[in-house]
Amino acid sequence: MFPERVLSGMRPTGLLHLGHYHGVLKNWVKLQNEFPCLFFVADWHALTTHYETPEVIKESVWDMVIDWLAAGVDPEKATLFIQSKVPEHAELHLLLSMNTPLSWLERVPTYKDQQEKLGDKDLGTYGFLGYPLLQSADILIYRAAQVPVGEDQVPHIELTREIARRFNHFYSREKLLDAKGVEIGRKPILLEPKALLTEASKMPGLDGMKMSKSYQNTLALRETPENISQKVRKMPTDPARVRRTDPGDPAKCPVWQLHEVYSDDTTKQWVQEGCKSAGIGCIQCKEPIIDAITRELAPMRERAAMYADNPALVRSIIDQGCERARALASDTMKDVRKHMGLDYS
Amino acid sequence: MFPERVLSGMRPTGLLHLGHYHGVLKNWVKLQNEFPCLFFVADWHALTTHYETPEVIKESVWDMVIDWLAAGVDPEKATLFIQSKVPEHAELHLLLSMNTPLSWLERVPTYKDQQEKLGDKDLGTYGFLGYPLLQSADILIYRAAQVPVGEDQVPHIELTREIARRFNHFYSREKLLDAKGVEIGRKPILLEPKALLTEASKMPGLDGMKMSKSYQNTLALRETPENISQKVRKMPTDPARVRRTDPGDPAKCPVWQLHEVYSDDTTKQWVQEGCKSAGIGCIQCKEPIIDAITRELAPMRERAAMYADNPALVRSIIDQGCERARALASDTMKDVRKHMGLDYS
Repeated sequence: MFPERVLSGMRPTGLLHLGHYHGVLKNWVKLQNEFPCLFFVADWHALTTHYETPEVIKESVWDMVIDWLAAGVDPEKATLFIQSKVPEHAELHLLLSMNTPLSWLERVPTYKDQQEKLGDKDLGTYGFLGYPLLQSADILIYRAAQVPVGEDQVPHIELTREIARRFNHFYSREKLLDAKGVEIGRKPILLEPKALLTEASKMPGLDGMKMSKSYQNTLALRETPENISQKVRKMPTDPARVRRTDPGDPAKCPVWQLHEVYSDDTTKQWVQEGCKSAGIGCIQCKEPIIDAITRELAPMRERAAMYADNPALVRSIIDQGCERARALASDTMKDVRKHMGLDYS
Repeated sequence: MFPERVLSGMRPTGLLHLGHYHGVLKNWVKLQNEFPCLFFVADWHALTTHYETPEVIKESVWDMVIDWLAAGVDPEKATLFIQSKVPEHAELHLLLSMNTPLSWLERVPTYKDQQEKLGDKDLGTYGFLGYPLLQSADILIYRAAQVPVGEDQVPHIELTREIARRFNHFYSREKLLDAKGVEIGRKPILLEPKALLTEASKMPGLDGMKMSKSYQNTLALRETPENISQKVRKMPTDPARVRRTDPGDPAKCPVWQLHEVYSDDTTKQWVQEGCKSAGIGCIQCKEPIIDAITRELAPMRERAAMYADNPALVRSIIDQGCERARALASDTMKDVRKHMGLDYS
C-alpha cells in the first residue's frame, strides 16, 4: 500500500572522498534505478555533533550536492533535498518524542560509542540523545520502505520500527479486515522500514586504514590528476622494502589494498610476483593504481566542474527536490495530525 | 530593541473553571491592556502528559478558546493562537536541543515532581524530559520579554534565559559597540525573558482544597445559575455545626474561604458573627456566595453562548491569530537560521 521508497541521508561535514563513493554513492546510483529514492543533506543531524562550529555545514552543503551529482546521482531519478528545508521533520520528531521512552534512546549502541569516540566534543546534549529519533522521523515521514545502512546502523532501523509500531498502536483506529470481514489488525499510519544491509566499504585510505577525513588519508572526489599521482606516490609501502632491491610482502603494504579494489587478476599477479622478488619498485607498483583512480575520477571531476560552474542549476535541482519531498512529508503529517486529533477540523 | 511582548499558554486538557479565571485569565485580561500579548493553546504540551489519550485535547481546544473570550480576553488586543499551527516552534525546539545540556533538563525541579505526582502515567519519555525546552522555544520564538508565571514555574524561565544566553554565545557575531566604539558585547539573537511573577491563585474549590479538575471540586466558567446554587449548597461546612443551633468556626469552613474571595467587609463580619453565634444557618451563609459567583459568571456565560453559537467567528479569530503569530515566529527563525548558517543563501 506504500511504494517501496528508499531513503538515505548524508551529513554535510566536509568534502566527499573516495570512501564515500565506494561506501555510499555507488550504491545510491544503483538504487536510483531500482526504487523511488530520496537522498537528503542531513544538515540538522550535522548539528548534533557540530553545533559549536556550524560554519562547516554551510560550507559543505552545496559541495556535497555537487559531489553527489558528480558521482552519478541523477535528479531525474532520485529526489535530492536538504533536511532543514522540510521543517515537517522537526514536527514529526517532536510528536514522536511524546511517546518515545527515554530508555529506548539511551540504549542505542551508537549513543555511548559516539560520545566516547568524539570525546573532545561535549555531546551530553538533549539533541544528541535524540538524534536516532530524528533519524526515525526522517524515515517515517516519507514512509520509506527501505533504508540502506551498514551493520552498525541496524539498531537505528530497529528503533525506527519500534517507534512506528508504538505510534500505530496508540493512534491507528481504522480496522484491517480479512476477506471474511474479520479484523486482522489496524491500518498502519506509519510504515515500519526495513534495513537494506549494504556491505561496509572496504575502501582503504592512503595509509592502509579505512579512508576517513579524521585520519587525513583521503582522496577527494574532485582530486586533480596531479594530486592523485602525488598522493599515491607518497604512500608508505611495506617497511621491509628499504631499498629497491629488498623484496617486499604485499600483505604488509597499503598499496596492495588498493590493488584489491582497482586491479584485475593479471595486474595483481604482476604485483605479487614483482614485489616478493623485488622485480618491480614501489613507484612502478603504484602506477596502475594512479591510472585507475584517475580514470575513475575523471568523469566525476568533469561533471563536478560543470555543476560548480552552474550554481543556479544545482540550486534548482535542490529546490525541486525539496518541493517534492515537502509534498510527501506534508501528506504524512496530515495523516499523523488527523490520527492524533490535532487537525481540529 | 525588542517590544515588551508578553507570552502565556494554557494546556487544553479539560473545561476551564473559576480557578483558571482567578489564577490566569483575569491576569491576561489585565495584561492585554498594558502590553502586546500572545496567548496560545499549548496543544503540543498537552501531549507530553496526554499522548495516550489525545482525544481530550481535540475536545478541549475550541471550548478553551471560547472560555478565554468569555472571560474577556480580547482578540483585538491580544494574539490568540494554537501552538501546533505554528510549526516553527518545533523547528526552534529542535535547533535549541542541539546545544542544550541534558543535565539542565534533568535538573528542572518540575521534572521529577510531575513524574511522581502523575505516577499513574508513564512519563519516562523523551518528550516529557524536553517539555521545558519546548516551553523555552515557545517563549524565545516570539522574543517575549515577559512571561507571567507562578513561583513554581520560575525555574523554567531561568532555564529559558540560560538557553538564550548559550545560543547567543555560540551564534551571535554582530558586535555591540558603546558610544566610543568599544565592543561591549554581542547583539543578542534571542531575547532573555523575565518572569512576571503572578500571585498563586488562592481560589478555593468546593471542598476547601485548591480548585482543580483532579479534585473534582470545580465550578466551570459556564456553570448554569442552577448548578452554581446547587453545588454551593452542597458544600461541606464546619463539621462541628451538626445542627442549625450549633455554633461554628469560619476558620474551619470552606465556605468562609469563598467569602474571603467574594464578600465585602460587612458581609464577612455578618458571617463571622452569625456563624460563631449560630445566628445564621449554613445555607443562609452561602447565599451571598451563590449571588456573587452567579453575578461574576453571568456575562461570561452570555459571551460564551454567543461564541459557541458562532464557531466560524471563533475559528476566524484563531486563524488570524495564528497568522500573526506565524509571521513573528518566521521572522525569528529567519534570524536564527541565518546566524547558525542554515540559510544557504
